[in-house]
Amino acid sequence: MRIARFRTAAGPAVDTGFGVVLGDHVARLDHRVASFDDLLADPVTPLSDDPRVPVATLTWEPPIGDHPKVVCVGFNYAAHAAESTRAPDEPSRPTLFARFGDSFVGAGTPVVRPDGEDSLDWEGEAALVVGHPGRRIPAADAWSYVAGVTCVAENSVRDWQLHSTQATAGKNWHRSGAVGPWLTTADEVGEGPLRVTTRLNGAVVQDDTTDRLTFGFAELVAYVSTFTPLRPGDLIATGTPQGIGLRRDPPRFLRPGDELEVEVSGVGVLRHGVVDEVPAFAEVGA
Amino acid sequence: MRIARFRTAAGPAVDTGFGVVLGDHVARLDHRVASFDDLLADPVTPLSDDPRVPVATLTWEPPIGDHPKVVCVGFNYAAHAAESTRAPDEPSRPTLFARFGDSFVGAGTPVVRPDGEDSLDWEGEAALVVGHPGRRIPAADAWSYVAGVTCVAENSVRDWQLHSTQATAGKNWHRSGAVGPWLTTADEVGEGPLRVTTRLNGAVVQDDTTDRLTFGFAELVAYVSTFTPLRPGDLIATGTPQGIGLRRDPPRFLRPGDELEVEVSGVGVLRHGVVDEVPAFAEVGA
Repeated sequence: MRIARFRTAAGPAVDTGFGVVLGDHVARLDHRVASFDDLLADPVTPLSDDPRVPVATLTWEPPIGDHPKVVCVGFNYAAHAAESTRAPDEPSRPTLFARFGDSFVGAGTPVVRPDGEDSLDWEGEAALVVGHPGRRIPAADAWSYVAGVTCVAENSVRDWQLHSTQATAGKNWHRSGAVGPWLTTADEVGEGPLRVTTRLNGAVVQDDTTDRLTFGFAELVAYVSTFTPLRPGDLIATGTPQGIGLRRDPPRFLRPGDELEVEVSGVGVLRHGVVDEVPAFAEVGA
Repeated sequence: MRIARFRTAAGPAVDTGFGVVLGDHVARLDHRVASFDDLLADPVTPLSDDPRVPVATLTWEPPIGDHPKVVCVGFNYAAHAAESTRAPDEPSRPTLFARFGDSFVGAGTPVVRPDGEDSLDWEGEAALVVGHPGRRIPAADAWSYVAGVTCVAENSVRDWQLHSTQATAGKNWHRSGAVGPWLTTADEVGEGPLRVTTRLNGAVVQDDTTDRLTFGFAELVAYVSTFTPLRPGDLIATGTPQGIGLRRDPPRFLRPGDELEVEVSGVGVLRHGVVDEVPAFAEVGA
């Protein structure tokens, strides 16, 4: 089952909702499920009289909680670690950083290339959306805490990522990444291996499978939940394969006109364009 | 003016509120101010008929937003950078990491030493609470976006902080740090220099002044807001002075029975004890 959040413009009003994607429609469930988190924790089967919203009329929102913890993993494919200048040789623990939820847009919405910065790089990833609250979750039980898997464009502003030893500033540019278009529930997608493919304007730039993750899905859930409680709607982005733009010769970064696609097998395709930040419209108060 | 959040047990019910601290009482303002964020953005003078809550009967909550962005700065006093093995020699930009809001408790509540970990270390800091939404805030205007200053015990589990190049895992242990007891409004506390003093069981272990910050208050607001929008209730912890427990000989870490105090001049004293995590009561679902 595919669970999604969306916005739809109904006349002058913007309407937000969540539900289950059924082909070219979404069955709205916000009329009978109290919250998106509830739906993650205990998915509900759509009924024939649930309201249907045509996919063509909606705008996807990231299929994550309202105030999610977003934990990302660096250097988690060996081939990507090898192309990175700062990766450890033999990592014994995951390399983690946090992103703010508002650093992401939903599928189909262009990401924002920051004014004055030309090092916005792609990072296609498979990501886990948490379904059940938990702390110190054993790896053996981890999958039962996962609501589903989604696609993430964990895009990074490389110049800012390298401002200090900590990646934070380059990983949190407002609306620089994307999540979606939906999550596919854990029972349906399975634990994998999943294939993660990133395409730039149709050409494959990253392509690997999650059985080659240094720290796999279950290990990541266990490690993260050791120190912080996880809740429905939290997101763990599991790391990007080899093939980032920074390591191409010459480097190739995202720019207006580009279309990026992140495909995770069994989940779907996250597609987004790129727009330049308009300084006069900088998101003051957003 | 001192703005605070608190809980109070009224019979079996737990009541939460916010208001202005007046000596040994808090004047509740939640009856006539829509939200804590509103009070930060536009502080309201208490009136004589606002309900009063005795400080002795309440539990402080962190004086930050419900879903704050928490940005912390590493290596921001030269003497502390010198005692740290991983600090850059001449930082040109702030070293930033993020903490989840639930990694903090309020003043007077003991922090939790993780089960099986004995490297919980203190980091006393002055921190800025944001009062007005903004993006790309010029340093010259930064102070007008600050609601006030509070005290932070930005405590860190050193072993986990050093698991990888990224500090995230050691900086986000659930309820390991503390914020409070209140914020003192920017107009009252002024831009400083402020003195930041940390005491362990009454003995001074850290003591410095904010004029010696490598990146000062205004620079930090400007830098952080370049990449992410700030909102009322967000927190910027400005860095800890020399004197962490890890660098004592032998190292000295926090343990049950300890009392830590973080004092910021013109603001107040944040005081907290330490309790061991009870594995059976691990915060599943918290």
